[in-house]
Amino acid sequence: MTSQTYDMTAGMTAGAAIAHLLGKVEERMRGLLASERTRWSAVGSGTAAAPVDDVAQLLAAGGKRLRPAFCLIGYLAADGRLDNETIVDPAAALEFLHAFALIHDDVLDNSPLRRGSPTVHARRAADHAARGWSGESRRYGEGAAILAGDLAYVYADRLVTDIPPRAREIWGQLRTEMIIGQFLDINAAAALDGDPATARWIALCKSGRYTIQRPLELGAAIAGRADLTPAFARYGAALGEAFQLRDDLIDAFGDSRNSGKPAGLDLAQHKMTLLMTLAMEADERVGELIRQQGTGAMKPEALRQSLIGLGAREEVERRIEVLVDEARAAIAGAAMDQCWSDELAEMAYQVAYRDR
Amino acid sequence: MTSQTYDMTAGMTAGAAIAHLLGKVEERMRGLLASERTRWSAVGSGTAAAPVDDVAQLLAAGGKRLRPAFCLIGYLAADGRLDNETIVDPAAALEFLHAFALIHDDVLDNSPLRRGSPTVHARRAADHAARGWSGESRRYGEGAAILAGDLAYVYADRLVTDIPPRAREIWGQLRTEMIIGQFLDINAAAALDGDPATARWIALCKSGRYTIQRPLELGAAIAGRADLTPAFARYGAALGEAFQLRDDLIDAFGDSRNSGKPAGLDLAQHKMTLLMTLAMEADERVGELIRQQGTGAMKPEALRQSLIGLGAREEVERRIEVLVDEARAAIAGAAMDQCWSDELAEMAYQVAYRDR
Repeated sequence: MTSQTYDMTAGMTAGAAIAHLLGKVEERMRGLLASERTRWSAVGSGTAAAPVDDVAQLLAAGGKRLRPAFCLIGYLAADGRLDNETIVDPAAALEFLHAFALIHDDVLDNSPLRRGSPTVHARRAADHAARGWSGESRRYGEGAAILAGDLAYVYADRLVTDIPPRAREIWGQLRTEMIIGQFLDINAAAALDGDPATARWIALCKSGRYTIQRPLELGAAIAGRADLTPAFARYGAALGEAFQLRDDLIDAFGDSRNSGKPAGLDLAQHKMTLLMTLAMEADERVGELIRQQGTGAMKPEALRQSLIGLGAREEVERRIEVLVDEARAAIAGAAMDQCWSDELAEMAYQVAYRDR
Repeated sequence: MTSQTYDMTAGMTAGAAIAHLLGKVEERMRGLLASERTRWSAVGSGTAAAPVDDVAQLLAAGGKRLRPAFCLIGYLAADGRLDNETIVDPAAALEFLHAFALIHDDVLDNSPLRRGSPTVHARRAADHAARGWSGESRRYGEGAAILAGDLAYVYADRLVTDIPPRAREIWGQLRTEMIIGQFLDINAAAALDGDPATARWIALCKSGRYTIQRPLELGAAIAGRADLTPAFARYGAALGEAFQLRDDLIDAFGDSRNSGKPAGLDLAQHKMTLLMTLAMEADERVGELIRQQGTGAMKPEALRQSLIGLGAREEVERRIEVLVDEARAAIAGAAMDQCWSDELAEMAYQVAYRDR
């Protein structure tokens, strides 16, 4: 199988093949945005292109491109050919979909910062205020962000018009799970619902499936294979939980200079994160602390210190270690060339031990 | 051609054929929502189905189903067969897309009422407040509505997976135009931008194309014909302007008991409607009145009375008459059976002279 794989990746290492395709994905995104910009610049005295610019600015500000990367690995691991670029558009679609999710999510959470820059709604609201425009700046800013997100969603969909039926099914599942996951997330935060089953399901949906399993499956489906799905599902479930726990740790204890987003937002909004759920399960005193913080009787900083004091941080680090091992084990015996299971093992470390 | 048409509609009149297919569209929407409800009821202690319910409630509250109707007429006028139900899913997709647009639009406009019931964000915010949940009720309500809208959008897309490439292109145009049109709309209201070219473009996009031309084209493309496009474009441009002017008149002078949505919202939010644009062009004093109302120096009610006093209302009624004639003329010579051009002429009256 090795020679066939080397043939498919045209003599490149696995890492170089992924980097090569990720470059094509960036080109595709920039090309689509440039043509949309040109198209809409002519309309409404030039203002019609503003939502296109909002999407472009978020994508240009960086981001980990995790979902396209998993999609490309899923494709290549399933013997997809490197010289056949059918995978580029769907991988770009995942990043546009993620732009949509982030722009709307930042409105939901009223987050001021994303990838080190002001979020779309914050920037548009500030612009509205600075110009002394009429109406409420918050309403305008959030409205503009809702529409910019909607537009990113349309671009995502445009890039999956030609995928096969099985891939389309996965695309449909991925989007629905992500939206329902978001809803459960804001709902649990509002209701101070600490049900561990709900918190786990949210993490499984939003991280395990949306970020890891479904992109891998999507890539494999485009290469025409469905047999890797069970391995991808186990890998995604374990690594997704690790991803979410790292996300929670970055929010609770991280540095916003690294992450490009404000620290402590989950705590401030009493999000029922997996971190909180684990901490509550490990120590019954945590539940009471969260309730105190939820009613405003305890400051986020005090809760943060209490969590460290109770050993929640170390507990979560140990759990992440276990999950990374589980993810690696899930992929070890799967029917793919060694270079791709190695690549997925490496990705597991990167995802679980990132600092942003 | 007549016998062929009668064969295709299985002996039904044009109106009965449309009603028959609209019934199938309703069934399809209800079926999809019921299966989604079942699927998500098991998750998150039953709360995960809430966004599905939000979409279902809006659709069950009625609505004119104009976009599915135009899509079905476009299909049948282009010799689409009545016994081939490929048109049902795309027609239902248009109504789901419209639900998405309305739910997000109501957040953008902070509208409390839609189809005679509280809007999604208003209902969810009130629910949040009534339960004494934590966080801001407005943020929660609008967040839940953003996600319910996003979900309706996913359902729309799921229903157009099998349409031919030409139809898919139209679907892509329709969505992009609608979103950019919405953005220009909130932008012009914020900037008090009374540029008639922009107002006309917004009306052309949001009403002419989104509501009429693109649904007709979509139906014809699914029947495999593109030759009707020029006639549909002219019909849509004229009738879309009439549709928008009627919308503006209902908002400015209508009765919310008929329309199911609050009257006077455009005036209160200084929307640069087509009505305003026409009035400004006809009488230079209107521009000054709008500026006064925009800065709060004039109440909406005083502006409404001034518009009537200056003859703006009659002027707009005359313009609607001209536009209906233009729409009928556009379709009169098109290559379709007489029964369909009659049906489109009838639709022009219904759309231009509706009271809600």
